[in-house]
Amino acid sequence: MPSLQPLEQLVKALSRLPTVGRRSAERMAHKIMEQRDSILPGLILALTEARNRLTFCSRCGSMTLTERNPCAICQDDQRDAVICVVEDAAAVIAIEQAGGYRGRYHVLGGRLSPMAGTGPGELRVRALRERLVSEQVREVCIALNTDVESDATAHYLAGELAGLDVRITRLAFGLPAGSGIEFTDALTLSRAIRARAPLDE
Amino acid sequence: MPSLQPLEQLVKALSRLPTVGRRSAERMAHKIMEQRDSILPGLILALTEARNRLTFCSRCGSMTLTERNPCAICQDDQRDAVICVVEDAAAVIAIEQAGGYRGRYHVLGGRLSPMAGTGPGELRVRALRERLVSEQVREVCIALNTDVESDATAHYLAGELAGLDVRITRLAFGLPAGSGIEFTDALTLSRAIRARAPLDE
Repeated sequence: MPSLQPLEQLVKALSRLPTVGRRSAERMAHKIMEQRDSILPGLILALTEARNRLTFCSRCGSMTLTERNPCAICQDDQRDAVICVVEDAAAVIAIEQAGGYRGRYHVLGGRLSPMAGTGPGELRVRALRERLVSEQVREVCIALNTDVESDATAHYLAGELAGLDVRITRLAFGLPAGSGIEFTDALTLSRAIRARAPLDE
Repeated sequence: MPSLQPLEQLVKALSRLPTVGRRSAERMAHKIMEQRDSILPGLILALTEARNRLTFCSRCGSMTLTERNPCAICQDDQRDAVICVVEDAAAVIAIEQAGGYRGRYHVLGGRLSPMAGTGPGELRVRALRERLVSEQVREVCIALNTDVESDATAHYLAGELAGLDVRITRLAFGLPAGSGIEFTDALTLSRAIRARAPLDE
């Protein structure tokens, strides 16, 4: 069969999405084409809008509208002088949706991972230290996942912030082990935020 | 948190893809944004190209380039006077890739399904009958899936074509039961094409 280059291109682009293998990408591509009048225009528009109108907050690193940078949370004077340190922008949304937290955020942009080649230099730690001073933060709540690399990252962070006049806490255990923050149900996450405890307890 | 409307829109558009639920769509949206310089432009381009350059062949219903309609297979004089009837355009690609078949195709565009409200009127049966005459077809090979609805569709088709001067075959059993054509490995599919048998055997 003569190859359909636009189809092949679409399959390749789709297979770069997370959890999407070659076969799923092929199915998606066909489904998209079969329902192209209903699916395609909206998808192209949404992706284009996302590219043009979404960015990452230059202060905390969470997702924000391009025209609103720093983000609404960073600009909200009513937020507590607490910074919740998370791995990625998805965790910010999960914690906001869970409710019960009224502070700010700081997205590390990853976790220490010798396997993946992520060292301290790849994480936004220096920016966090600067914020502790400029925003007169009284507490840093570490809200990383519960796997081994995230635990190592939490302890590295605690070491980096030791000696500063700031209380360091972490989310209460209560998170199911080995799971990711964005997959935790709202109640569990909300309770863990309320029961956060000092790192060395 | 103030809602990020472009993000919400993207999540909704992604969750309309097959096998993608709300949570997967959220993960995809974040991954897309995190890697937007590497993923986004290619994905938007591929979708736009697919919309502009791909269409369905007006004769057989398989996927083709917009500027090449009827498709390359329909225009290929070297193809045997056999028509392989499939449910969707994805099956055409699977059979072509399996090799061993040198005829043409006809995409039904679905299968009889009282549950989904698909009746004979929704399938491209009349167009198939017209092709049998105009293309002097000597054999119709029914290559539908092996589930109950597809079997019913195959028997309905055989009834519709009975009395015409054309041999009606189906893919050899050898396909694993309950599976879909596009998930079958090439060898199994290729053998099934070679061993195709009359419908009433």
